Amino acid sequence: MEHMEYIAKKEIDFKEPIVITGFPSIGLIGNIATRQIIKELNLDYIGYFDSPNIPPIMTVENGKIYPPIRAHANENIVAIFSEVLIPQNIVYSLTDKLLEYTSHINPKVIVNLDGITSLNPKDIYAVSTSEDILTNIKEQKIPILEFGMVGGMSGLISLKSADKNIPSLCLMAETPGLRPDPMGASNVIEVLNKLYNLNVNTEELIKEDEKIKEKLKKLAEEHLKLMTKQQKVENPMYL
Amino acid sequence: MEHMEYIAKKEIDFKEPIVITGFPSIGLIGNIATRQIIKELNLDYIGYFDSPNIPPIMTVENGKIYPPIRAHANENIVAIFSEVLIPQNIVYSLTDKLLEYTSHINPKVIVNLDGITSLNPKDIYAVSTSEDILTNIKEQKIPILEFGMVGGMSGLISLKSADKNIPSLCLMAETPGLRPDPMGASNVIEVLNKLYNLNVNTEELIKEDEKIKEKLKKLAEEHLKLMTKQQKVENPMYL
Amino acid sequence: MEHMEYIAKKEIDFKEPIVITGFPSIGLIGNIATRQIIKELNLDYIGYFDSPNIPPIMTVENGKIYPPIRAHANENIVAIFSEVLIPQNIVYSLTDKLLEYTSHINPKVIVNLDGITSLNPKDIYAVSTSEDILTNIKEQKIPILEFGMVGGMSGLISLKSADKNIPSLCLMAETPGLRPDPMGASNVIEVLNKLYNLNVNTEELIKEDEKIKEKLKKLAEEHLKLMTKQQKVENPMYL
Amino acid sequence: MEHMEYIAKKEIDFKEPIVITGFPSIGLIGNIATRQIIKELNLDYIGYFDSPNIPPIMTVENGKIYPPIRAHANENIVAIFSEVLIPQNIVYSLTDKLLEYTSHINPKVIVNLDGITSLNPKDIYAVSTSEDILTNIKEQKIPILEFGMVGGMSGLISLKSADKNIPSLCLMAETPGLRPDPMGASNVIEVLNKLYNLNVNTEELIKEDEKIKEKLKKLAEEHLKLMTKQQKVENPMYL
Amino acid sequence: MEHMEYIAKKEIDFKEPIVITGFPSIGLIGNIATRQIIKELNLDYIGYFDSPNIPPIMTVENGKIYPPIRAHANENIVAIFSEVLIPQNIVYSLTDKLLEYTSHINPKVIVNLDGITSLNPKDIYAVSTSEDILTNIKEQKIPILEFGMVGGMSGLISLKSADKNIPSLCLMAETPGLRPDPMGASNVIEVLNKLYNLNVNTEELIKEDEKIKEKLKKLAEEHLKLMTKQQKVENPMYL
Repeated sequence: MEHMEYIAKKEIDFKEPIVITGFPSIGLIGNIATRQIIKELNLDYIGYFDSPNIPPIMTVENGKIYPPIRAHANENIVAIFSEVLIPQNIVYSLTDKLLEYTSHINPKVIVNLDGITSLNPKDIYAVSTSEDILTNIKEQKIPILEFGMVGGMSGLISLKSADKNIPSLCLMAETPGLRPDPMGASNVIEVLNKLYNLNVNTEELIKEDEKIKEKLKKLAEEHLKLMTKQQKVENPMYL
Repeated sequence: MEHMEYIAKKEIDFKEPIVITGFPSIGLIGNIATRQIIKELNLDYIGYFDSPNIPPIMTVENGKIYPPIRAHANENIVAIFSEVLIPQNIVYSLTDKLLEYTSHINPKVIVNLDGITSLNPKDIYAVSTSEDILTNIKEQKIPILEFGMVGGMSGLISLKSADKNIPSLCLMAETPGLRPDPMGASNVIEVLNKLYNLNVNTEELIKEDEKIKEKLKKLAEEHLKLMTKQQKVENPMYL
Repeated sequence: MEHMEYIAKKEIDFKEPIVITGFPSIGLIGNIATRQIIKELNLDYIGYFDSPNIPPIMTVENGKIYPPIRAHANENIVAIFSEVLIPQNIVYSLTDKLLEYTSHINPKVIVNLDGITSLNPKDIYAVSTSEDILTNIKEQKIPILEFGMVGGMSGLISLKSADKNIPSLCLMAETPGLRPDPMGASNVIEVLNKLYNLNVNTEELIKEDEKIKEKLKKLAEEHLKLMTKQQKVENPMYL
Repeated sequence: MEHMEYIAKKEIDFKEPIVITGFPSIGLIGNIATRQIIKELNLDYIGYFDSPNIPPIMTVENGKIYPPIRAHANENIVAIFSEVLIPQNIVYSLTDKLLEYTSHINPKVIVNLDGITSLNPKDIYAVSTSEDILTNIKEQKIPILEFGMVGGMSGLISLKSADKNIPSLCLMAETPGLRPDPMGASNVIEVLNKLYNLNVNTEELIKEDEKIKEKLKKLAEEHLKLMTKQQKVENPMYL
Repeated sequence: MEHMEYIAKKEIDFKEPIVITGFPSIGLIGNIATRQIIKELNLDYIGYFDSPNIPPIMTVENGKIYPPIRAHANENIVAIFSEVLIPQNIVYSLTDKLLEYTSHINPKVIVNLDGITSLNPKDIYAVSTSEDILTNIKEQKIPILEFGMVGGMSGLISLKSADKNIPSLCLMAETPGLRPDPMGASNVIEVLNKLYNLNVNTEELIKEDEKIKEKLKKLAEEHLKLMTKQQKVENPMYL
C-alpha cells in the first residue's frame, strides 16, 4: 500500500461532526458541492493528505498556497475534497488514511457526494452499505438506487467505513456528465440541507449553471453555422 | 506477492460445503452461473476479498453496496465470484487467499466454473489435477477435455488446491464466446445439479438467452440492410 | 519514497542565507535566473543531489564535469537548480531532501523562482503559504496572484517548508512560455534585488532576450515567405 | 529478484542424471524436442516452478491439468520445459531456482536445447562456457559456433551453471525460424542420442515436419493464385 | 537501487592498473575501442557484472559463452565494456558496483571512452571532474571540451569516482554518430597510447572504417539512382 499521511494544520474541538467528501468524478458534483459548502459555511482549512503519489499541484487563492487534497471544518462539519483526480494507485491508501483520521473524530455520519449519468438529470439517489441508513433514507422520501455501480473514492469509503462501523451513505446526483454540473451540485446540497439542516445557500451554483448553459448554447449555434458552411463547401453540388 | 485479505462479514457453521467459483472469462459462464446459484438458493453475503489492487468498483443492489469480489453461502454451499475482471497481478495472491480461506472451512470439493470456445456449443467438459476425481467424473458420463488449456483463476485454483490436498475440478461449458452466454451457464448448472443434487432452477437463464439471441438476430438484420444500402452508394454503378 | 541524498563537495560557514531555487518549468525562468545569479555573484559549487532516479546527464563547463541538480553558494546566498527536468517520481523525495539540507543551514527564507503563462508578459507575482510573508510582500508593492496554480518543485517546496516552519515564497514571472525567456528571468531577478538587495546584474539576460527575439522574427519572416510560395503551388489557380 | 519456487510432486532416486532444458525460442526447437523426449522415454511428471509472475496458463492432457513450467524425469534423465514464453522479469529468478534444484540432484551435465536462424537449416552447433566440454564436443565431430549469441534461458543457464561448477552446454539447431520446426528438434535429438545414448525415436517429428511443409506449400500456392488475380485487377492495363 | 554484483572468474595481481571503460553510446566509440585494446593486448577475461536487470544476451566466441558486461585485464590494464545497451534503471547500480570493484584494485586512473557528435569528426576532447587532471591534459596538448554534456555510464562514473577520490577522465571522440565508427575508436586509442604508452595497434580499425565507408558510398550511389528513377516516374512531365 502506498505511503499516505494526514498532516494537521489546525486542531478543532469536534462535536460528532458530519463528514462530507467530494472527490472528482462525473460532472464534478462532489467537488463543486463541497467547495460551495466550505465557502458558504466559512469552514477553516484544517489539514491535508500527503503522499509522494499525489500530483504536486497546489492551488493559489488570494496569494495563499493550498495543497490539492485537504480538509476544511468547523465543530459540526468536516469537508474533505480534492482539486486533482485521485490516481488509481492511491485510492486505497487515501481511503484508509481518511477513515483512520475520521474515526478519531467520532463522526455522526460520512456522506460521500458523487454523480450518476442521466439523459434527463433531476433526482438524487442514495446508496449505503447499511440497512438502517437505507430505512431512514426511505422514510425521508429520498429515492434509493435500485441497481448500479459506485466506483472510486465514494465506493471504497462506503465499503471500508462499514468495516469500521462508521455510518455512511453516498448521495448521487443525476448529471449529464459531459461538463462541470453546478446544478447537480446544487441539487445534492439541497438533499444534504434537508437531511442534516445545513442551510447551505446554492443560489451561486444555480447562476453558474445558467452561465455554463448559455455558453454551451452559443457554442452549439456557432458550431451549427460552421457545419452548414462546411457542408456547402464539401458538397460538390455547391461548388 | 500483492497484499490480499479476506474480510468476513458473517460467520456460518459450515458442514463440509461445496465451494463454487465463478470468475469472469469467456462467455462470462462462471459469473452468470454463480450469480444464478446465489439467487436461486438464497445464499447470504458472508464476506469479501480486499486488496489495494482490486478495482474499487462497488455494485449496488436495492440501494445496498457490495464489494466486487465476494462470497455468498449457506451451510452446504459457498459461492465465490467477481463482478470485475481479475487484474493479472492479483490472480496469484487472490488464489492463495481464496485457498487459505477455503481450507479453513473443510470443503468437500472446489468446483471452478469456466467456458471453452466452440462453434457449436453444447457440451460441458471436466478437467482436474486428480486422477480419482477424473475417474469419478467418467463414471458419471461427463466428458473429459482431452487436450487444451485452463487459464486464469480456474487454472491456478486447480493447480494450487492440489498442492493443499483439496479436491477440485473445473467444469467448462462450450460457448460461442462473443457475448454473455446464459445458456452455457445454464448447461454448467445442470451438470452441477446432477453431480451434487443442488436443484438450482435455470429457467430464468434460458429465457435470458432467448432474449439475447432475439436481440442479436434483429441487430444482424438491421446490419444487413445497412450494408446493402451502403454498397449501393459506394458502388459507382448505382450513383 | 525514492532514495535521495545530498552530497556535500565544499563546506561553507553560512550566515542565515537566502536560499533560491530554480527548477525547469515554463519559460525556464527559474533555471535561467538562478544560473545568472550564480554567475554574477560568483557562487561556488558546494554539492549535489544524488539518486538512481536522476537522469545521468552531466554538464561540462571549461572541461569540468558537474552533476545536473546542484547547489552553488557564498555565505549569504544558496542557489539550487537543475539542468534536467525533474522526473515526476522524485519531486517528493528531492523536495524532502532539499528541505532537510536547507533546515540545517538556518535559512532566512526560501525563494522559489518560477513562471506563469501570459499573452502580455510583464509582471512578477508572489504567492506563499504564510500570511505574514504575503503582508510583507504587499507592503513592498509586489502583486499577489489572486487565483491560480503552483505545480512541481516550487509548489511542493512551498507546502513542505511551511510544515517545517521555514519561511518561503514563490516569485512567478509572466512569460509567453513557448521558448526560454531571459527577459522573464531578468524581471524576476529585479524583484529579488529589490526584496533582498542582491545587486545581481541582468544586462546579459536582456541582450540574450533581444537575440532570441531577433532570431524568432527572422524565422517568422522566412516561414511567411515559405507559406506564401507553398500556397501558390498548392492553389490550382497558379498551376 | 522475483519470487520463485520449485514445487516437488514426486521424489525420484536420481543417478547422476542428464538434465535437458527446452524453453520457447526460435522455431520452438527446445520445446518440441523436450516434449518428444518426455513422450518417448515415458518420463514421469515430478514437479513445477511456481511464481506469481508465471502466466497462469495450465495445459490439459487427457483431462488432467499440468502447470506451464515443469519437470519430467526418470532416474537418469530430467527434462525441464515451458509451455509459455518466459517473461523477461523472471528469466533470472527461474534460472536461479532451476540451478538450485539441479545442483541438489548432482547432475552429470545440463544440456540446453535451442535454435539458431539459418536460411539453409541443417547443422547443430554446440557452445559452452567450459573449455573441457568444447574439447570433448570437437572430438565427437559436432560443430562449434564460431561467433554469435545465446540469449534467454539457455544463455543464462549456461553462464550461471559455470558459476556453480555444473558442466553445461547448449545445442543449437539451425532453423528457418518462422514456424515451429520439428525437423530441427529431431536433428538436435539425434545429437543428444549420439552424445548420451538416449535412443529417443524421432520418426514422429519427421512426419510432423512433412505435414507442416505440405501445408505451407499449399498455402503458398493459394497465395500465389490470389496475388496473380489481384495484380490483374490493380494493373490498369487489364481494366 | 537495483541489485548488482561483480562475479570474479580469475584473480590478477594488479599493479596500479589503468581502468578503461567502453559502454555503448554514439558511434559505439567506447565499445569498439575497448574491444580492440582487449584483442591487441591479449587481455584475459577476469569477471562479469551480474544483475536480474541485465539483458540475458551472451556472446559466443569460438564456441565459448561470455556474459554481456565483463572485464578483461592484465597486471597493468583493466578493460570493462558492455555488448548490450545499459538499461536506464541499472546505470546507477552498475556504476556503483564498478567503482566498488575498481577501488579495491587501487587504480592509477579510470579512463571512460565515449563519443561526441560532429559533422567534421577529427578531434578527441577530454573532460574531468578534477582540476589537476585537466591541467595535466592541457599540458599534453589534448583539447578540453569547453561546453557540453556527458551522459550515461561515462558521466556517472566520472561524477562518482570523484566522490571516491579515484582520478578519472573521459576521452570523447568526435564522430558522425549514425554508424559504428572504427576511425573514431582508433583516434581515441591514439590519445590513450600517447597518454599511457599502451602501444595498441589500430590498423585493423582503420581498415574496417574504410570498408564501412566503401559500403556506405555504394549504398548512397544506388540510392541516388533509385531516387532519380522514382522522380522521373513521379514528375508528371515524364509521364
